[in-house]
Amino acid sequence: MLKFDEQKQYASFEGALKKRSEIEKIVDQVWEKGFDNIFFIGIGGTYASSMQVVQHIKEFSAMPAFVEHAAEYLTTGNKALTSNSVVVFSSVSGTTEEVLAALTKIKNEVGATVIGFIDKDNTPMGSLADYTVIYPMNEQLKFFMLADRFMQNRGDFPDYDELYHELDQYLPSALVEVEKSADAFGQAFAEKHHLDTMHYFVGAGNQMGATYSYAMCYWEEQHWIRTKSIHAAEFFHGMLEIVDRDTNVTVFLGEDSQRPLAERVAAFLPRICGNASFIDTKDYELKGISEKFRGHISHLVMMAVTRRIDAHLEKINCHPVEIRRYYRRLNY
Amino acid sequence: MLKFDEQKQYASFEGALKKRSEIEKIVDQVWEKGFDNIFFIGIGGTYASSMQVVQHIKEFSAMPAFVEHAAEYLTTGNKALTSNSVVVFSSVSGTTEEVLAALTKIKNEVGATVIGFIDKDNTPMGSLADYTVIYPMNEQLKFFMLADRFMQNRGDFPDYDELYHELDQYLPSALVEVEKSADAFGQAFAEKHHLDTMHYFVGAGNQMGATYSYAMCYWEEQHWIRTKSIHAAEFFHGMLEIVDRDTNVTVFLGEDSQRPLAERVAAFLPRICGNASFIDTKDYELKGISEKFRGHISHLVMMAVTRRIDAHLEKINCHPVEIRRYYRRLNY
Repeated sequence: MLKFDEQKQYASFEGALKKRSEIEKIVDQVWEKGFDNIFFIGIGGTYASSMQVVQHIKEFSAMPAFVEHAAEYLTTGNKALTSNSVVVFSSVSGTTEEVLAALTKIKNEVGATVIGFIDKDNTPMGSLADYTVIYPMNEQLKFFMLADRFMQNRGDFPDYDELYHELDQYLPSALVEVEKSADAFGQAFAEKHHLDTMHYFVGAGNQMGATYSYAMCYWEEQHWIRTKSIHAAEFFHGMLEIVDRDTNVTVFLGEDSQRPLAERVAAFLPRICGNASFIDTKDYELKGISEKFRGHISHLVMMAVTRRIDAHLEKINCHPVEIRRYYRRLNY
Repeated sequence: MLKFDEQKQYASFEGALKKRSEIEKIVDQVWEKGFDNIFFIGIGGTYASSMQVVQHIKEFSAMPAFVEHAAEYLTTGNKALTSNSVVVFSSVSGTTEEVLAALTKIKNEVGATVIGFIDKDNTPMGSLADYTVIYPMNEQLKFFMLADRFMQNRGDFPDYDELYHELDQYLPSALVEVEKSADAFGQAFAEKHHLDTMHYFVGAGNQMGATYSYAMCYWEEQHWIRTKSIHAAEFFHGMLEIVDRDTNVTVFLGEDSQRPLAERVAAFLPRICGNASFIDTKDYELKGISEKFRGHISHLVMMAVTRRIDAHLEKINCHPVEIRRYYRRLNY
């Protein structure tokens, strides 16, 4: 299978889940001290992951949790972000310019408690955090583990132990199996759509961040294919009018509370569009994962599927995903 | 001037501003009772206006204010929305299906305090509100008047009296003059872009809601032209890679705290794109409005400019803006 090392992938998920005890200790310390609210701060991909985790929190809890865009924070600021706030970030490099500047302001001028997930140790962003968790990849899983622990402490997440007992045991293999069983679909999808001049992605719930980031951080940034992502709840309030027989539209269907919003678009689309695709996390087995927990990990399942599209799209289009036309090549 | 009745437009703004004393009474009563947080609930265009007002509040205050999408509320709910919450909505018809359903739930099951801005009296949505303000159009202005009064009561908006003294006196004529002086630009823009297969709109701050709604509720829904809107802060994190010499990109530049984010895109774009347009609210005089208040009304200035584009685009494309291909013609 193209760009797929089963053992490595399994180990990556397994290792991320093993960071949970470390995350729990951090959350519990922060919990003991007390706090007013939590901000997930990011840009681009980390902004999308922040949207996902905040949406996830909203499903279960009234805990005040917000997405904050680092560049917006640097201009508008945020009066609700105080020394009693918790700020969470994630970074691969630990150097992302705008987030680094925002964290510097948050640390030096505001004095909030900062928790950082970074792929490697000894980074400028790491040095600004009160707590760091060092582990590569698996950004969403790390954010969700943190959020779930906060919600458990708050009494909003009684299923915590049961959920993580299952995930520790079954998630790595379930996700590896998704990738394997999605490979043929990924290839067919890439073959069909590799010449698209425009592709629309529609999603809801914890799929919205996935939809947004897949469209923008993968197809636009890495494949140089134009896309638009839209929330399934908003699809009927404007965008539908420009859809016709040949429009490339893909609906992401997850299994959280907002599944009905995506289903509504999926049911409607075929009447006006002969070129719609549907990626439904329900089509994947997820051995060992209880029905009631499938919604919690739908976004990870979707990502496992889209990884297969990416692998084939890169090959078919002869367009290595690591090259950028402008980003980090031109100053802005 | 095409589709422009100066007197009528002036009277529309003036009448909206005159509703302020009514809005103040409502806000003051709600303020006296006390509340935990405010939710602006909407879909499509009203969702965009909600984004604008919540962004506006963030500029000045830590008052807990949130955007809630009616359809999302109907699936996920919102545990922070309680009987101590204030819920604000706006509607032209007073019948919008999803908002009506959400309000019914909020009124009957949650018991929050509901304030409704509706274009006409005696509507199903009006009957669910504790307080209504009946006046056509001017949705953003109505939302901002309400938010500003809440912030004044909170002590976060000392300029309130000074601002509205100016707006009452000068805003109607300032906006009418913007429309008149933007007409030639609107015509040229419409002539240049009426055949676009895709158009990108970029904005930040209180222009983001304007950008989102202009792209989706005007060009897509009314003109049937494909668009994508993106926050200026996110432009550099994906979308820029698909921009080339001929890409149609328009940057909305307002005058609130996030102007630098839009300026950054505007400064960068010409290096990679020979087809970029810039609509800058600074180019309009706004007689009588102090420098420090221009940012408060940038979104209204932008809307006055885009109205001129719409008038010409409709004519050139022979596409009446009131027709819909699918919306309210097919069930979903």
